[in-house]
Amino acid sequence: MNFLGKNHIGYQISAFGDRIFFGIDPRNNQPFETPFRQASPEEVDEALAKSQEAFEAYRLISVEKRVQFLKAISEKLKANKELLIQWFCAESGLPRDRAETEYARSCFQFEFYAKAVETGYALEIKIDEADPERKPAPKPSLTKINIPVGPVVVFGASNFPFAYSTLGGDVASALAAGCSVIVKAHAMHPHTSSISAHFILETAKEHDMPDGILCHLLAEDFTVGQKLVQDPRVKAVGFTGSIGGGMALQRLIDERKEPISLYAEMGSSNPVAVTKSALDKRAAEIARQLAASVLLNAGQFCTSPGLLFIEEGANLNFFKQELINAFSGSELQCMLHPGISKRYFERVKEHAALVTVLYEGKHEGNFIQPTLAETTAEHFMKHPQIQEEIFGSYLTIVKCSDEVELRMCMQLLQGQLTNSLYAETDEEINRFLPVLTAKSGRIIFNGVPTGVEVSFAQQHGGPFPSSLNSYFTSVGWDAIKRFQRPVTFQNFPENFISKKVEFNGNTHFLHFLNGKYE
Amino acid sequence: MNFLGKNHIGYQISAFGDRIFFGIDPRNNQPFETPFRQASPEEVDEALAKSQEAFEAYRLISVEKRVQFLKAISEKLKANKELLIQWFCAESGLPRDRAETEYARSCFQFEFYAKAVETGYALEIKIDEADPERKPAPKPSLTKINIPVGPVVVFGASNFPFAYSTLGGDVASALAAGCSVIVKAHAMHPHTSSISAHFILETAKEHDMPDGILCHLLAEDFTVGQKLVQDPRVKAVGFTGSIGGGMALQRLIDERKEPISLYAEMGSSNPVAVTKSALDKRAAEIARQLAASVLLNAGQFCTSPGLLFIEEGANLNFFKQELINAFSGSELQCMLHPGISKRYFERVKEHAALVTVLYEGKHEGNFIQPTLAETTAEHFMKHPQIQEEIFGSYLTIVKCSDEVELRMCMQLLQGQLTNSLYAETDEEINRFLPVLTAKSGRIIFNGVPTGVEVSFAQQHGGPFPSSLNSYFTSVGWDAIKRFQRPVTFQNFPENFISKKVEFNGNTHFLHFLNGKYE
Repeated sequence: MNFLGKNHIGYQISAFGDRIFFGIDPRNNQPFETPFRQASPEEVDEALAKSQEAFEAYRLISVEKRVQFLKAISEKLKANKELLIQWFCAESGLPRDRAETEYARSCFQFEFYAKAVETGYALEIKIDEADPERKPAPKPSLTKINIPVGPVVVFGASNFPFAYSTLGGDVASALAAGCSVIVKAHAMHPHTSSISAHFILETAKEHDMPDGILCHLLAEDFTVGQKLVQDPRVKAVGFTGSIGGGMALQRLIDERKEPISLYAEMGSSNPVAVTKSALDKRAAEIARQLAASVLLNAGQFCTSPGLLFIEEGANLNFFKQELINAFSGSELQCMLHPGISKRYFERVKEHAALVTVLYEGKHEGNFIQPTLAETTAEHFMKHPQIQEEIFGSYLTIVKCSDEVELRMCMQLLQGQLTNSLYAETDEEINRFLPVLTAKSGRIIFNGVPTGVEVSFAQQHGGPFPSSLNSYFTSVGWDAIKRFQRPVTFQNFPENFISKKVEFNGNTHFLHFLNGKYE
Repeated sequence: MNFLGKNHIGYQISAFGDRIFFGIDPRNNQPFETPFRQASPEEVDEALAKSQEAFEAYRLISVEKRVQFLKAISEKLKANKELLIQWFCAESGLPRDRAETEYARSCFQFEFYAKAVETGYALEIKIDEADPERKPAPKPSLTKINIPVGPVVVFGASNFPFAYSTLGGDVASALAAGCSVIVKAHAMHPHTSSISAHFILETAKEHDMPDGILCHLLAEDFTVGQKLVQDPRVKAVGFTGSIGGGMALQRLIDERKEPISLYAEMGSSNPVAVTKSALDKRAAEIARQLAASVLLNAGQFCTSPGLLFIEEGANLNFFKQELINAFSGSELQCMLHPGISKRYFERVKEHAALVTVLYEGKHEGNFIQPTLAETTAEHFMKHPQIQEEIFGSYLTIVKCSDEVELRMCMQLLQGQLTNSLYAETDEEINRFLPVLTAKSGRIIFNGVPTGVEVSFAQQHGGPFPSSLNSYFTSVGWDAIKRFQRPVTFQNFPENFISKKVEFNGNTHFLHFLNGKYE
């Protein structure tokens, strides 16, 4: 692994920068031995030039070859599981079963997006037939198709070393769209990320893909990311992280001459609402589901539930005790990085001034247990900042005297990735739907927000500040659309439209253009 | 018409501002008699509050009622043709036949977008069936549907008093999406715009639509628009106008806490490329088509052709003479406004320093003839600012020694709404496609860019600076998507998905939710 510690500028390994950093094992805060060399400004520039050149070549390669390439990445990953899993666990402190799940998801995603292209779904071809006889003027034929936007920059995420990083949905969907990609690796898992890049590039070489279709740059500070997003060659950016990080990127992008889209998936508290009727009937079941969701991997998910709006009822004390039992009986879990646990403890402290702590989670080093807090609806309405995300396991109960008060609290919510509703009747659902739809991108009925299904109809992106652009999703087939734009061909000869493919009852066109597009 | 000169704040007529302005007849530069009163900051605020309230009510009204309302607007306009046409011509200086065409388009658009909703197309419903048996975890059901984003601000455009103003595609598609709309009327046609608003509001009343579903604000300066786009209640903005105007709006939006999408369709020179083979075979025909396109309504279209890249050939002198004959033999045409003709003459003067004028169009007051200029490819490559749009009839020929040089010139183009290619063979098309697709949103084969078909597969929006967001279109069914965002419902009971409707082989769902959504 002679590439470890170095940047991938297309097929070239490069390490000329002055700045060095190390991966850290969060279980003991010890650095790993290989020094990683941050990309120098010259290396960033080379990557940009190569990415631009590769894009020009890649967009002319046939859709079939693109599909084969994506599927082959998935195969390559499957053949190299152990190395990837091992570094994933070592750098993230996450347990093996989580590594396995996320690894399987990453393998699947490349196939999943390949299929979106193969079936014609991603091309979204729309056709208006000509009508030469129309009066007063003939109607021209129009054929609309999605084409790739250009080189894309993807920022690796701290909390998903596979599925939102170099092997993640942003990279897979951008490559599926026909774009070249520059990954800014997350400094918290440089080994995992570099090894990931190596396997994609090895597959690219085997499939004769243009040099520069993927670049992988190492960076510990903000300078590399800044240079990337402000470069005119870059046409879209994918980011998963904090609101602060996303907004800082947006301000850098605002300074560009040409505006481009930043697809930032940022923070969310994923409120869960429980009606009195649901609490009356299912207190133990809901407590069990919710506790498991809060506990999952120390709550380090964008969809981890942080807020619980609940109507007071006979079962409330029992319900709270069930949560306390689950939290206090749980094993301490390692957070991703000393920087992340530090921030968690800061937020917990800030938050304590606003709420009543019912159970204070134990902690040791970077290992934590969830904390359970509560407040009243009245207090919440006076201090709506209580809703702000705490990244890591932490649940705040907002006790509401009735359903009306509960919905009034929810009206004060900022935009969220998800909302959940535990309820019993259609009438309850109907009363909640207006506020639920207004505040989030995904609404879960009688279920918890964790576990984002990678599926056709998924929406992972909600109103600001949970996302910067709620029109788009970072999960599901529609994620590809972030990296495409439509072009309409007017009055083109029939033979430029060839080879049809069926999708879901509609006729799509796999090979749109002959010649260069095959 | 007691509303003339006043703002429409929903169903309320209001005129408390201090600032007054007048419509102008561009044919003689004389003001019309009615004073128009710019909306005061308090009136803007009232409009925003009403628009927000109306949105909350409108989004819960059934899709069927929405469709009926949109169709009824179209009927209302048809019943009031003469008054609208008369003011259109008086305020724009455009001829009656153009007024009739644009009027017909506006009537059509409300029906057209109604149909996009009625068929289920606009809702874009996507469904993943549940799989309770899946291991290790059951798969939940997911149903994705587009919902309206919130109150929308639309800026009327100077050059389309109907079809891109109060009766335009932005208003029609936003209402179709389920959004309330605040129109900032263009000060160049306040009568036309106010009468338009009156007819929409009269229809809204007849259909019991919520008060505030449309607000219509008068303004001569930038303060009203600024207050509107910076208000947190506004969730999207539609604009058609200059690059300067669009970018100024974007900078105001960049200052918001919550970023929102500005759909700005800005400038474009709509380059036309003619290969030697096409010039050899069809010089007279191409010259005739191109001249007619340049001449259309004094070239005051976003798709008016301003640049012609042509390979030198035996027919070039004949071709140029044909254009000169067409231009010099044409009647002088009135520009929309003294402000617009002033800017035109300034741009013509600036441009003259960069090119050789072959025919200088005659002019008198606001009336103009097109000017024909030429330059060489070499000179163009040194001075790519030659490509910058001149709003109004003006054509610059860029003479290229061969096809390679022609494509090199095109590589220097900024983003365009359209590109046209006159060519003879498939091989020629294939060689041009990479540059054509990279530079524009619509590509016309053997045809001119004017005449934007309002049709399913249309794309009216291209790379920056022709549009701010090339993912979207302001014409065609997809225009509705600018004012919607998707929400996924996970694990919802079956009876929340009712009443199916067929579209294009796919099953869509007209009434998604029962209860409040009916």
